Amino acid sequence: MYSPRSIGVLLIAALPRPVMCLWPQPQTISTGSVALRLSTNFAIQPPMASSPVDLMDAISRTESFLKNDKLERLVVGRGAADADAVAGARVLSSLRLELGGDISPTAALSLKSITDDARALLESRNEAYSLQIPADGSAAVLRANSSLGLFRGLTTFSQLWYWAGGVVYTIEAPISINDSPAYPYRGFMLDTARNFFPVPDILRTLDAMSWVKMSTLHWHISDSQSFPLEVPGFMEISEKGAYSKSSVYTPIDVQNVVDYAGSRGIDILVEIDTPGHSSIISASHPEFVACAVASPWAVNAAGNPLQPRPTLLSEPPSGQLRLATPAVVNFTAELFSAVAGLFPSTMLSTGGDEVNNACYANDPETQAALNATGQTVTQALNTFVNTMHDALRSRNKTPVVWEEMLLDYGVTLNNDTIIMVWISSQNAASVAQKGFRFIHAASDYFYLDCGAGEWLGNDVSGNSWCAPFKTWQHSYTFNPTENLAEDEAKLVLGGQHLLWTEQSSPANLDSITWPRAAASAEVFWSGAGRDLDSALPRLHDLGYRMVQRGVQAIKLQPEWCALRPGACDD
Amino acid sequence: MYSPRSIGVLLIAALPRPVMCLWPQPQTISTGSVALRLSTNFAIQPPMASSPVDLMDAISRTESFLKNDKLERLVVGRGAADADAVAGARVLSSLRLELGGDISPTAALSLKSITDDARALLESRNEAYSLQIPADGSAAVLRANSSLGLFRGLTTFSQLWYWAGGVVYTIEAPISINDSPAYPYRGFMLDTARNFFPVPDILRTLDAMSWVKMSTLHWHISDSQSFPLEVPGFMEISEKGAYSKSSVYTPIDVQNVVDYAGSRGIDILVEIDTPGHSSIISASHPEFVACAVASPWAVNAAGNPLQPRPTLLSEPPSGQLRLATPAVVNFTAELFSAVAGLFPSTMLSTGGDEVNNACYANDPETQAALNATGQTVTQALNTFVNTMHDALRSRNKTPVVWEEMLLDYGVTLNNDTIIMVWISSQNAASVAQKGFRFIHAASDYFYLDCGAGEWLGNDVSGNSWCAPFKTWQHSYTFNPTENLAEDEAKLVLGGQHLLWTEQSSPANLDSITWPRAAASAEVFWSGAGRDLDSALPRLHDLGYRMVQRGVQAIKLQPEWCALRPGACDD
Repeated sequence: MYSPRSIGVLLIAALPRPVMCLWPQPQTISTGSVALRLSTNFAIQPPMASSPVDLMDAISRTESFLKNDKLERLVVGRGAADADAVAGARVLSSLRLELGGDISPTAALSLKSITDDARALLESRNEAYSLQIPADGSAAVLRANSSLGLFRGLTTFSQLWYWAGGVVYTIEAPISINDSPAYPYRGFMLDTARNFFPVPDILRTLDAMSWVKMSTLHWHISDSQSFPLEVPGFMEISEKGAYSKSSVYTPIDVQNVVDYAGSRGIDILVEIDTPGHSSIISASHPEFVACAVASPWAVNAAGNPLQPRPTLLSEPPSGQLRLATPAVVNFTAELFSAVAGLFPSTMLSTGGDEVNNACYANDPETQAALNATGQTVTQALNTFVNTMHDALRSRNKTPVVWEEMLLDYGVTLNNDTIIMVWISSQNAASVAQKGFRFIHAASDYFYLDCGAGEWLGNDVSGNSWCAPFKTWQHSYTFNPTENLAEDEAKLVLGGQHLLWTEQSSPANLDSITWPRAAASAEVFWSGAGRDLDSALPRLHDLGYRMVQRGVQAIKLQPEWCALRPGACDD
Repeated sequence: MYSPRSIGVLLIAALPRPVMCLWPQPQTISTGSVALRLSTNFAIQPPMASSPVDLMDAISRTESFLKNDKLERLVVGRGAADADAVAGARVLSSLRLELGGDISPTAALSLKSITDDARALLESRNEAYSLQIPADGSAAVLRANSSLGLFRGLTTFSQLWYWAGGVVYTIEAPISINDSPAYPYRGFMLDTARNFFPVPDILRTLDAMSWVKMSTLHWHISDSQSFPLEVPGFMEISEKGAYSKSSVYTPIDVQNVVDYAGSRGIDILVEIDTPGHSSIISASHPEFVACAVASPWAVNAAGNPLQPRPTLLSEPPSGQLRLATPAVVNFTAELFSAVAGLFPSTMLSTGGDEVNNACYANDPETQAALNATGQTVTQALNTFVNTMHDALRSRNKTPVVWEEMLLDYGVTLNNDTIIMVWISSQNAASVAQKGFRFIHAASDYFYLDCGAGEWLGNDVSGNSWCAPFKTWQHSYTFNPTENLAEDEAKLVLGGQHLLWTEQSSPANLDSITWPRAAASAEVFWSGAGRDLDSALPRLHDLGYRMVQRGVQAIKLQPEWCALRPGACDD
């Protein structure tokens, strides 16, 4: 004979457990078990009569997602079991946006836009919000102290709802969320130099990034292979160095991308990689680039492969800026100053990875320039980098560099410089020990291109240098403060997934990036140490939602598994 | 002082070498160095007044490709250097299709369609053609003895032309090609059971396949996770076993796919995998399936992982047909008979891989059925398989099975059976030694899913079982007759790339498949031992052309490399 209680337990065990479909997971969330449906006239009320335009746009997009996502619950039966509860559910008619108590009425009148908030200094941004959804149908309330916080809350709100038979609903009301990010920098890096990506592909990526509350697009806009950015005053670089007349980003394109990003809570950290990874500048300024002709990639003058390979050549084509030549230093500093004028972020990256010493050692012009001043290459590099960084600071930009500048090349960097750790996650501790703020971008956790095979043409057995493939599971277990002392942990600004595009193009931009890159978005929003098992159902939800919104996220498992949380665990 | 000859040599060395952009490479081709442009009124003349409808359609598609491909040569300058030669070039106004001398006037009057040719017995198909393009502007001539041969020639013709400034041209006239395939089976396998693929995705894939002269879509239509095929008389299987009401292939869908394929020279080999990989049939016929409930994947009755894993479980969910139960044998034979009625091919696969002995050993119903007749599992499997195959033969189908049936399970197969070699390319020789015709489908060369990481949910460090990623270069070096004696080599029907879709969906179907799968298309059309260096520029051309035609083939290299053949070799 069963007691009502034991029957209840049996029912709970038999019904598929609801999955709260948020990504990233909020800092605190409490949910009930009451069904609640959205009114067909559901509306979101802005915080004030004349709210910032981009906040109004975000409200419209959110209302559109609520109508069009149509995500059926990923359980056997796709939510059919919810029908009875939903049929009798109370109706939620509105979400009211409110400014928190920290904002005075006067300040509220001059509420900054999402765009302004998103471009503020990293550490100064306020992305916190709270969200209350009562179970009785009375208005839901989203409260924050900034437009950016309200936008993050809207993003959360848009993910709370499932769809069944025309009804948008939750079975977990009441819902109460208090949320804010663990780290301000949650990014994605896109390389638009190895292969070109038209603006619409970048805009679509910005949308996807915003859905997982990413804050920064690191735009690796140029490299040795192409220079697609049209820089006023330096038009010859892209005229000669872009893949074609149409494979360029005009200043208007940049403005569009920057605006689109800003209104979605995303800052754009642009990178012009120097002094290495710059060979293509030789197309317009052959006199500024060493090794571009004299030591082509891995081939000697007779056309035979060099054995052994020259050290430090990373990939074809070789060639890097003649860092010791004063005219090159001036040119590059002016270039950075001009680029700085195109991008409103407080950050800009001068690159700095994989500088090839052998190239300079074998370049007569560089040797002559060094001899003329009695400098070593290291001293010249120091001068070069600091000249660039000073040029940026005079435009109110904080310089960002890849880790070698600090750890390997002996460059003396001002301690405002932000470091990107890429070679190995193990190097984060060395950067922290030197007292620099840094961003996790480690190849062993976050490189999306790894494992797709060797791209050098005639290499039959080759694999990518950073194989194996970085699974979402692997990225998800990353601990941003591993091996860091407490004061060192404060230097972590966040982290990002990265897409190097030797083998990518618009054809696989979405599928190689999503939903995998969402793993780091959650690590750096929610913090480390989250549970893998409960993450997967949420990640399935996110992926299905992305596809519906037009981003081609791949399936991580057979749908059979997605409908049965835990059934396909190892 | 230079002689004219040495100047000529210098010019040849300085100009980018033209790349004949065909894929697969024809058996014989000779080209000149004269420029020739297509007339804006260029037209293709059918072989006779009332040619087969699908041949007329193929002519229209070819004319459309010639207009719309707009492939600029993949060289620095994108063909701008050809402008002068092209401006003064002769104009080609027409391509005349002719039936070869082997076809009598009477036979020509009843010329079979491409569709009929594509569905004929593998060894009986005639795909040969010859193509002559004079340099003087007089009509080009495509000659073949079949509609299918003409179609293959049209496919070649459509790839011969580059585009620059509105002009469609070649700089390699005259062109003479004689061509026919090395093997009749050149395929691609798509698994539509792990994740579902709507019909438009399959149609797009058929187009791409036809562009590289593939002859067969191996449609792995069902598996343990889902059964999307609506089979008349067996509707309950898909009603209960498809992922949703809309995730099904209706008989009309199948007819559309089959027709679309046929008109593009493609036969469809459908597979219903049995007796393993069939767990989902338990949703409609629980009494027919062993282990689906009693021994779920890797979990014991208390919900704890089984350690060690039961042997032979390949992936969740477990469950396979009760092969010793007479009602199951009859049911499955009737199912195959009904499926055979939906597909016009002369071939049909009964699957047969990864049969789990432990499942049958622990299934009381199977043990009872075996005891009732005094059979071993092997004897029961033998009866099961041969009953299925007899049912197929009575519908004029040649059965196809995975290799274990022949090599591992001790099943006595009729020697008309076609074997799919998948576990290892090394097993081809064992199949050949037993005298069976076979298809290369080896995981170590042709599995497109390998290297994309573990898909079991909570496995942090796992990789795919068949890692590393199979690069196009690796697949391209496959030798279909390695380790085979001369008479054994005759048993090779061809081969294929395969896409298992645990982590694939429409989102990455194109990008995971193309252009990689073109590597096997060339190996099995052109024959083994082709040159990797000269293949890559042609493969770039193909990939760029595919994107223009709407198939999202990925870039294999930075565009910088694609424009400079050989510059990014290892």
